Amino acid sequence: MKSPLPAKAVLHEVVLRDGIQNEKNIVSTEEKLRLIDRLAASGVRRIEVSSFVNPKLVPQMADAEELWKRIDRKKGIVYSALILSERGLDRAMACGVPHVGIFVSASETHSRKNSNKSIDEALKEALTLIRKASSSGIKVRTGVMNAFGCAYEGKIPPRQVLKLVGSLFDEGPEEICLADTSGLGNPRQMKEMISRVRELTGKTSISLHLHNTRGQGMANLWAALEEGVTIFDTSLGGLGGCPFIAGARGNIATEDTVSMLHDAGVRTGIDLKKLIEVSQGFEKHMGLVFPAAVSHLTGAFCR
Amino acid sequence: MKSPLPAKAVLHEVVLRDGIQNEKNIVSTEEKLRLIDRLAASGVRRIEVSSFVNPKLVPQMADAEELWKRIDRKKGIVYSALILSERGLDRAMACGVPHVGIFVSASETHSRKNSNKSIDEALKEALTLIRKASSSGIKVRTGVMNAFGCAYEGKIPPRQVLKLVGSLFDEGPEEICLADTSGLGNPRQMKEMISRVRELTGKTSISLHLHNTRGQGMANLWAALEEGVTIFDTSLGGLGGCPFIAGARGNIATEDTVSMLHDAGVRTGIDLKKLIEVSQGFEKHMGLVFPAAVSHLTGAFCR
Repeated sequence: MKSPLPAKAVLHEVVLRDGIQNEKNIVSTEEKLRLIDRLAASGVRRIEVSSFVNPKLVPQMADAEELWKRIDRKKGIVYSALILSERGLDRAMACGVPHVGIFVSASETHSRKNSNKSIDEALKEALTLIRKASSSGIKVRTGVMNAFGCAYEGKIPPRQVLKLVGSLFDEGPEEICLADTSGLGNPRQMKEMISRVRELTGKTSISLHLHNTRGQGMANLWAALEEGVTIFDTSLGGLGGCPFIAGARGNIATEDTVSMLHDAGVRTGIDLKKLIEVSQGFEKHMGLVFPAAVSHLTGAFCR
Repeated sequence: MKSPLPAKAVLHEVVLRDGIQNEKNIVSTEEKLRLIDRLAASGVRRIEVSSFVNPKLVPQMADAEELWKRIDRKKGIVYSALILSERGLDRAMACGVPHVGIFVSASETHSRKNSNKSIDEALKEALTLIRKASSSGIKVRTGVMNAFGCAYEGKIPPRQVLKLVGSLFDEGPEEICLADTSGLGNPRQMKEMISRVRELTGKTSISLHLHNTRGQGMANLWAALEEGVTIFDTSLGGLGGCPFIAGARGNIATEDTVSMLHDAGVRTGIDLKKLIEVSQGFEKHMGLVFPAAVSHLTGAFCR
């Protein structure tokens, strides 16, 4: 080991948003609330509760207002929402959302498909949203989607990512997130990109949103951890992930990440056994087989 | 990146041995021969053809003699067999096998279950086999099973692994292989163990046999690659792996490994598109869904 590994890492749980957003089986508000409480009880400290989007486009997120109203907000836990438009931010503010994610895509094609805006237009709106949220006392993490490649465009020039990071960083966010939205990143690229982003952003936290599309998610996480990144988006059971292609693996799984980190001596504050029970319970509820590994194992392997 | 990544890596293909050994659907000799030829045509340079074991215990390996007789051995390709006993070595020698793997387990319980011998007895036999094979001009890779933990015993003291490596190394093998037989290794452990093994073995090649039981296989591979390891056992489609537990992921998948390595600029000599076709063909033949990722993707993701 050339430099010491971080002693601890924070997992930003996205199962309630990225995890279920493309699932046809609508999860009830009751079940979401139960899941949020169970995640909190297992030691998860950051929970992405919902996005505020058009319910016609994403029916799974239609109950955002009711959900936020009813969450039993516990001290020490960050409840977050993903914001995609000014209307979404207004809805979030009306709900007293304390922490939001605001992203732009580094891919022109993806930006237009995702937001109906060019990158420049999307960036302009994101900057406005960040200012508005920040000035209302909402903590903002901001980031770049498809930072490691795009399902539509293939490779994305790093300078394009760095330019966006620079513009977003100027607004003084809490955290900069690099999202491997298409799952096209590799571990070498992680290290190189993180190193270059850090030159721009100094001590501001960098987080990573990784997909396991090509089976490289955990290797990417490890490479980033060695580069000093300590905040990772993960999804219970590995649910969710790439909406572009059928059959693709999902997000990196929270339980597999906890297992790897703990085994390597990196603390997360999460109780793996409890978390596995939460995953197994939710898997049964959804009637799916989640892509995660450790929640399908027993005994000595659940560590 | 602290030190440069290796420019190239060699994949030791184990689908015909570890991959299918526990599959009930017996693969015909014809199909095995076709698979060997197709793997070779896609650029795979090391192929583990079979083990020589009791056909009553492992029916899938019952055709070892016929298979070896009929292989169209191509120049530049290493055809290898796994040897578990003196009788197995005699059978391999009668077939003109040019390269063998001879392993001992670092776990007392696993050693007794796997070979009906204590570690000391198994080591003694292994040393005899290595000498016999080497003196007949057969190239030997030798190694330690459960080097990173055991499904039965949990943690395995590194000194136990290093002691075995030392004894095996004294016989002058071509290569020392560390096998994560139970899939309990983590990336930090990989780096630490490899570094300590290299202190003993100097310039002798180290290889890794990794399982993806807990979803950490690719992260382990990446960590080992950064530590300078350039030979990895992989299995087409990720077939095979841990025989201890139902539902566990298999070996790390050849196509996912090739994808990650190529993307990170590490050459393997393998044509990924051709390899994916071989995997898809064999998956269809077996009537299974292989755990590999990239052979289930399309377009931009197959890189």
